[in-house]
Amino acid sequence: MSRNMLELVRARPGDGERDTLRLEAFSDGVIAIAITLLVLEVRVPPLHETEDGKELWAALKDLWPSYLGYALSFVIIGIIWANHHDIFRHIGRVDRTLVLINTFFLLTVSFLPFPTGLLAEYLGHEGERTATIVYSGWLLVIAITYNLLWRYPSSHGRLLAADADPVVVETITRRFNFGPPSYLVAFIAAFVYPPASLAICAALAILYILPTALGRS
Amino acid sequence: MSRNMLELVRARPGDGERDTLRLEAFSDGVIAIAITLLVLEVRVPPLHETEDGKELWAALKDLWPSYLGYALSFVIIGIIWANHHDIFRHIGRVDRTLVLINTFFLLTVSFLPFPTGLLAEYLGHEGERTATIVYSGWLLVIAITYNLLWRYPSSHGRLLAADADPVVVETITRRFNFGPPSYLVAFIAAFVYPPASLAICAALAILYILPTALGRS
Amino acid sequence: MSRNMLELVRARPGDGERDTLRLEAFSDGVIAIAITLLVLEVRVPPLHETEDGKELWAALKDLWPSYLGYALSFVIIGIIWANHHDIFRHIGRVDRTLVLINTFFLLTVSFLPFPTGLLAEYLGHEGERTATIVYSGWLLVIAITYNLLWRYPSSHGRLLAADADPVVVETITRRFNFGPPSYLVAFIAAFVYPPASLAICAALAILYILPTALGRS
Amino acid sequence: MSRNMLELVRARPGDGERDTLRLEAFSDGVIAIAITLLVLEVRVPPLHETEDGKELWAALKDLWPSYLGYALSFVIIGIIWANHHDIFRHIGRVDRTLVLINTFFLLTVSFLPFPTGLLAEYLGHEGERTATIVYSGWLLVIAITYNLLWRYPSSHGRLLAADADPVVVETITRRFNFGPPSYLVAFIAAFVYPPASLAICAALAILYILPTALGRS
Repeated sequence: MSRNMLELVRARPGDGERDTLRLEAFSDGVIAIAITLLVLEVRVPPLHETEDGKELWAALKDLWPSYLGYALSFVIIGIIWANHHDIFRHIGRVDRTLVLINTFFLLTVSFLPFPTGLLAEYLGHEGERTATIVYSGWLLVIAITYNLLWRYPSSHGRLLAADADPVVVETITRRFNFGPPSYLVAFIAAFVYPPASLAICAALAILYILPTALGRS
Repeated sequence: MSRNMLELVRARPGDGERDTLRLEAFSDGVIAIAITLLVLEVRVPPLHETEDGKELWAALKDLWPSYLGYALSFVIIGIIWANHHDIFRHIGRVDRTLVLINTFFLLTVSFLPFPTGLLAEYLGHEGERTATIVYSGWLLVIAITYNLLWRYPSSHGRLLAADADPVVVETITRRFNFGPPSYLVAFIAAFVYPPASLAICAALAILYILPTALGRS
Repeated sequence: MSRNMLELVRARPGDGERDTLRLEAFSDGVIAIAITLLVLEVRVPPLHETEDGKELWAALKDLWPSYLGYALSFVIIGIIWANHHDIFRHIGRVDRTLVLINTFFLLTVSFLPFPTGLLAEYLGHEGERTATIVYSGWLLVIAITYNLLWRYPSSHGRLLAADADPVVVETITRRFNFGPPSYLVAFIAAFVYPPASLAICAALAILYILPTALGRS
Repeated sequence: MSRNMLELVRARPGDGERDTLRLEAFSDGVIAIAITLLVLEVRVPPLHETEDGKELWAALKDLWPSYLGYALSFVIIGIIWANHHDIFRHIGRVDRTLVLINTFFLLTVSFLPFPTGLLAEYLGHEGERTATIVYSGWLLVIAITYNLLWRYPSSHGRLLAADADPVVVETITRRFNFGPPSYLVAFIAAFVYPPASLAICAALAILYILPTALGRS
């Protein structure tokens, strides 16, 4: 039986792969929790503030910024999750710097419920501009960290798997490069006209979904 | 050693299966968190509102809508989880559209704590009808999205595994087709007589458990 | 190459085992979340209620029922988790009834943060007896459901793995039978003298840890 | 085919390893949840307290202790997670005592959102010293429990894997021994000058990241 066969037979992944899998599993867990905690920012209208069913309908309608924030942040984190996998699929091993960048990246993603809650509270009120600046600004921070998370292991093939396809790597790089400038535009728009900023964020989410869907399915 | 043997030996799942497993694991995670967050909608009666143990008993009794909402939503999400597995057991590969549908599906399931909280707050009060309409209406939305999650990969065998049994696939399809019209009935009933709507939701939960139990165990 | 060898080589678990693993993973997830949510019942004393550091110390000391409830419920859920594994280690396959019992079991465990919060709020106040009755009563409910979760698959070896050791199965059965009557004593004690009930719960937790430790390590 | 080959072929991990993996997975889950719950301690400024966008900026600036607490605790838990893996990588089997120590360790980590919330509420106010003493004191408790979690299985090679490298084990022991005295210094500093205590905690976090990064990447 050849050495090659023995390698095929080895069922337990090597140390490098085991570390990669564990880092991905932990990140998946944190992302799954962050995405699910978003609903806690949608607050049930208190009983004593609504006198009857009609007033409750009105109160539920007034919660539209909460629904919008929930849906937008949910889709954005969902996209982050799907792409996170693309990173780790091509990484062959993990070093401490990557763990560090990934921790910082998770820190920014886990924090998103706060700006989302801010948006839910202030959209349609005086603080709308401030809230939108913070929200789109935070998405920009996430985009930059996320970019770093791909750029560090992939540049010069630092931590890429031996069998990573250069063409696919190049495609992912192009896609990641697209993020920060896009969210910078949304961030700048928030200073001028908040609804435009949110429209850009929503458009970006849709754009991120569509071309990839066309390209892969 | 035959090629067949080599395939048997390969311990690491292929790309298609790995994607399927990861999507299922992420969905399992989100569903597990959503089901556990339900308890946060059951609020401890504040100390300053109850003067003694007798008043606390009364306050605890008044929380029955919270208990009902918790139990009903918990069982419904539990059934969703069990059936979610049936979908992914028969899927051979994942495309971006399926990821998209699954994300939207998880968005609707993760949101359930909100309508549940609404039910807990307004059942037995003026806003009861409104809260029940929203709750049963949201269950209808979940049922439709869930239906789509099965219909897309299964119709014309689009993403089914090569060894998926057509008879079993047909059975699952029939079961999924049953969901949306049933919850539509519950939704309509909520406009007429809210308790009837909730009774239908509870009956549906029991129905979903029983026949499957008979059919499989 | 013998058939036996081929079976050894098969790296992917069969359907029965895959279902068992998935059920165990989901349960582990729900238990991990329930145990972590307990901390949310420990509320930070609001800034406006404490005038200086000394008053904050006093406020922190007054939170002792919260600390006690957190620690007790954490250890109890931790023990539940450890024993849950013993069940699934000996189960060979899953049927729908077991999924149903497990869902109901998870429903009771996930709900524990509520009675824990009740204990945290009312211990040392008027409602102490009521809160302790509810808390120990709920632990009794969990113990009964948990018992059922072992009794159903193990009686007459219904769903046990082919290689399950009858002696070990018997030992586990004895251990599980010990639970409900013990918590019944704690429940009854709560009506008479609440601190005794909590002392029994704590003693049971310690007892559950010790003999098993002696028996296995 | 040699016995050795048969062992290589066995794809399913043995009982010892399976227990280790399950304990690690559960711990990873609890840690992932605890790290993500931290954001719930960062509270959105209520709408009725801020009159316009300018006031909202001021309110957001006043939340700096929340941001600091979130970031500090997130990084500390992140480091704990990364090191937790180092422990379990070298452990060959699990006994009940280790499960017990690990449960107590998870209890201390899961509780961190509370001292973090305390810090967020009281930093820059009267209770600052008290809050910092509690926070750094709790980090000391975590460091001691964590130390025990490594010391128990590693001393005299009690539960170490057969192939654990003694040099690496020694390195990990030295690193773990460094924790408790360091946090003791931070704890003492909190009595004297709270900001110094937090600076030490932050410095420790950075120190923990850097040397390991240099040593392994």
